[in-house]
Amino acid sequence: MGGARFIRGLKLAAPDAQITIVGNTADDITLFGLRVCPDLDTVMYTLGGGIHEEQGWGRADERFTVQEELAAYRAEPQWFTLGDRDFATHILRTQMLDAGYPLSQVTEALCARWWGGRADLRLLPMSDDRVETHVVIDDPETPGGRRAIHFQEWWVRRHAEPTARAIVPVGAEQAKPAPGVLEAIGAADVILLPPSNPVVSIGTILAVPGVRDAVIGADAPVVGLSPIVGSAPVRGMADKVLAAIGVETDAAAVALHYGRELLDGWLVDTVDADAVPVVEAAGIACRATKLTPLSDPAEAARMAREALELASTRRS
Amino acid sequence: MGGARFIRGLKLAAPDAQITIVGNTADDITLFGLRVCPDLDTVMYTLGGGIHEEQGWGRADERFTVQEELAAYRAEPQWFTLGDRDFATHILRTQMLDAGYPLSQVTEALCARWWGGRADLRLLPMSDDRVETHVVIDDPETPGGRRAIHFQEWWVRRHAEPTARAIVPVGAEQAKPAPGVLEAIGAADVILLPPSNPVVSIGTILAVPGVRDAVIGADAPVVGLSPIVGSAPVRGMADKVLAAIGVETDAAAVALHYGRELLDGWLVDTVDADAVPVVEAAGIACRATKLTPLSDPAEAARMAREALELASTRRS
Repeated sequence: MGGARFIRGLKLAAPDAQITIVGNTADDITLFGLRVCPDLDTVMYTLGGGIHEEQGWGRADERFTVQEELAAYRAEPQWFTLGDRDFATHILRTQMLDAGYPLSQVTEALCARWWGGRADLRLLPMSDDRVETHVVIDDPETPGGRRAIHFQEWWVRRHAEPTARAIVPVGAEQAKPAPGVLEAIGAADVILLPPSNPVVSIGTILAVPGVRDAVIGADAPVVGLSPIVGSAPVRGMADKVLAAIGVETDAAAVALHYGRELLDGWLVDTVDADAVPVVEAAGIACRATKLTPLSDPAEAARMAREALELASTRRS
Repeated sequence: MGGARFIRGLKLAAPDAQITIVGNTADDITLFGLRVCPDLDTVMYTLGGGIHEEQGWGRADERFTVQEELAAYRAEPQWFTLGDRDFATHILRTQMLDAGYPLSQVTEALCARWWGGRADLRLLPMSDDRVETHVVIDDPETPGGRRAIHFQEWWVRRHAEPTARAIVPVGAEQAKPAPGVLEAIGAADVILLPPSNPVVSIGTILAVPGVRDAVIGADAPVVGLSPIVGSAPVRGMADKVLAAIGVETDAAAVALHYGRELLDGWLVDTVDADAVPVVEAAGIACRATKLTPLSDPAEAARMAREALELASTRRS
């Protein structure tokens, strides 16, 4: 959601830019036999004008007939909300995947509806291979006392309440970056890390072998926006997953977690201005600016301009 | 539709009867990767109270959001109408089939929603194996001048307009009756052929190896209702498919097509009273009674009583 809203602002800030978005697919889940890619869809719907604005995910003007009918059949799970319009996306995606198309081609075909022949926007899944984030939680009833559940089950069904003992991107080590991902990173003028979850969103993308190295090796400056404002994540439950990897919920801590090797510049919110010298001391250029509200496209555009400006400073 | 409405009447006419319905599955089609079983669903929805009464197929209070969204993605085909409520049935069926359950078990699971623990109604697909009716039509652009299209494409998309040169139940010869089909036929007190299409509905069921022989060999009397009233089929385009197999659209002709070997009794409409001596002359007991409107459950019950009475006459 943070990524999608930030990119919408970026498009306003740099209308002539060619933007390649590398999307996290480790939150993907198969429900009722249909492949659901929440992060790709949130980007697609947000940039395509189909997003439910207030909610930030799912389609606007949505109804839930199909899910109600599935519930009448007692089909599980019912804890993941899927609207009727959204179902069409998953049905078509699953049909194409079953026909043998890789997710990257399926995503391109779906995006064709939302932004047609526009050559300035491209959404790539991080990988065509299946990677699924699992969360290890305590469970006295499991031998060993712990078990791993799908990220969505932890996040959506259990509201991130069970303490995350570990976050494991299952399959990441064997995954290959989707076609175009490394090329886009290598050819980029600027690489931006939106204020997305540094563990389960950006972290899993960087965990796909070759991606982190491509970002580190790229000529382009790499600038990120802090997903933490004050001691609270901009949205979501980022602190829960940061704790799992031993990182404080703190704007400076996230920058240091990415590290100087990866990051050239970092934007923090004005309420976190005291993070600036800490981040700068680590060799990462840092500025404080207002990082909310991302939901306002004009504000998101302002943040994007700040990020681009920081990137150009760094480059020069 | 004729079958479903007739069985609703039968249930009223014989409330204590144990009814096993053998449903045609050769009209089934895979759309958007989802397995659609129109005949099974029409029976299930009709007997479960979920049918669109006026239309006779599909769900009541239906909307078409999913299909509209698929159209927005330019996904084909768009000529087959699928409502949002209906989609849930197909999604769940496909999920269970993909998980390895045979269609008969999937159908039982779906019906559990509609008639719960009722032991008096059982819906069996004719076969768990795939059988698909194809219609051979003229096509000057195809080498040889003819090609075969899926029954639904001919029936729904092309309104049965191209002349059917042949009707082929592809896969029927290799199909096995679903578990319970032959047993139900063998154990039946009465076997009823509803006023369904004698070629593409009842004909394909009888084409599954073993089914016709089981009906012929059963102790129970076999009584059918004419799907033809006057020279017009009760509904649908039965005349087009009858012509393809060289049978006249005529209440007596259909009885003779089934033949004395299969059929013990036959009900024709009062407007076809002159068919009675023709059918009787062939050794099949025949009576004339009003065979419309099937859509009225009380009228359908009356027809069912007539059929049961004819069966009991025959048996004694």
